[in-house]
Amino acid sequence: MNELFLNELKEKFGITFKNLAFLQEAFTHSSYVNEHRDCKIQDNERIEFLGDAVLELTVSRYLFDHYPELPEGKLTKLRATIVCEASLSLFAKEYGFDKYIRLGRGEERMNGRNRPALLCDLYESFIGALYLDQGIEAVLDFLRQTMFPKIATGAFSHVMDHKTNLQEWLQQDGEIIIEYRLIDEVGPAHEKEFIVEVSAKGKVLGSGSGKTKKAAEQSAAENALKTIQSR
Amino acid sequence: MNELFLNELKEKFGITFKNLAFLQEAFTHSSYVNEHRDCKIQDNERIEFLGDAVLELTVSRYLFDHYPELPEGKLTKLRATIVCEASLSLFAKEYGFDKYIRLGRGEERMNGRNRPALLCDLYESFIGALYLDQGIEAVLDFLRQTMFPKIATGAFSHVMDHKTNLQEWLQQDGEIIIEYRLIDEVGPAHEKEFIVEVSAKGKVLGSGSGKTKKAAEQSAAENALKTIQSR
Repeated sequence: MNELFLNELKEKFGITFKNLAFLQEAFTHSSYVNEHRDCKIQDNERIEFLGDAVLELTVSRYLFDHYPELPEGKLTKLRATIVCEASLSLFAKEYGFDKYIRLGRGEERMNGRNRPALLCDLYESFIGALYLDQGIEAVLDFLRQTMFPKIATGAFSHVMDHKTNLQEWLQQDGEIIIEYRLIDEVGPAHEKEFIVEVSAKGKVLGSGSGKTKKAAEQSAAENALKTIQSR
Repeated sequence: MNELFLNELKEKFGITFKNLAFLQEAFTHSSYVNEHRDCKIQDNERIEFLGDAVLELTVSRYLFDHYPELPEGKLTKLRATIVCEASLSLFAKEYGFDKYIRLGRGEERMNGRNRPALLCDLYESFIGALYLDQGIEAVLDFLRQTMFPKIATGAFSHVMDHKTNLQEWLQQDGEIIIEYRLIDEVGPAHEKEFIVEVSAKGKVLGSGSGKTKKAAEQSAAENALKTIQSR
């Protein structure tokens, strides 16, 4: 493996592979193997199969532990926005993995090095290699440094409703009771508008309006989140 | 929890739960919760979400380790025939799990206790509970007693081809070289039939015929497997 990459893994993430063959396999695309049939090298597809399952479990466990109030349907939805091509390919790029994968010449010419599907597979292969080399705890360690903080600060929470997002955000520092209070109803009966205020620990965080109380609560939570996150 | 069930778990699988709340949650269907809203009980959906991911990883790892020659596509296919409603619901039934789940009266009347989707979820919930209570090693222990031997003896291998199945079967006791030899061609040129013999360690295991050499090899492998497995 490239020495520069090994140093980067060590410096950025504190990772030192014991068996470099796992890492080598993870960073070998099938297009490279096809051009070196005589060399008996293995592409990263099997190790990606394993990495995908490792990621599913580690992320599921994180969500299960940190979102005790979320029902199964929302957990599944949230996991799907995290463990997906769009997000994993960005992680692979962010960590510079794209620079070190071995590609065939055809794939290289077709700009494969920047293809999201390829980068996503590469991220999962890396997870698979780390798991094979050092077990699931090492994967958790890596995710605690990289992915989990992003989940905690709501980077994937757009699939959840604003009230849930606000709760998650505020609960980072421990349990907290959030209150929604109807403070006004305006307009004629057939076109009423509700105004709701949201507060926690006796402090008003924001307010919002809507055609139903529920919509007004969502709007209040959204405004509160914007204010808090822009501080 | 039912004492009889706790004894069954201990006697059949050597499993004793430390925290019975996990087991209770795993064996509580949402229809039961809906009928007992005042009791603040939790249905098994969140724990099933976790169990599903635990099962994906444990089965993936087993396949990865035991089928070193299978490409990713076949691993995925094989895993899908194992971790699926049809097979997991049968496991749940085989272990008598169906007797102990708490259902609502409506679900009970609709014969929910025998519904494959419900039984499959129940199996995954049980895995989730075992994982939360005792970690992934305990799940592996359970699978080594129950599921993995079935995989090893080919219960799910119908998705693979006969040659692969034969190889897997014979490789249970270590690496082995399997040879296919064309021993005859019969019939006129436009309707030729090939006869192939398969052998390992110098011993003929079976033979088969087909319109192509490939088909004859598959047929020979199928016949060899039948003979070996009926011994």
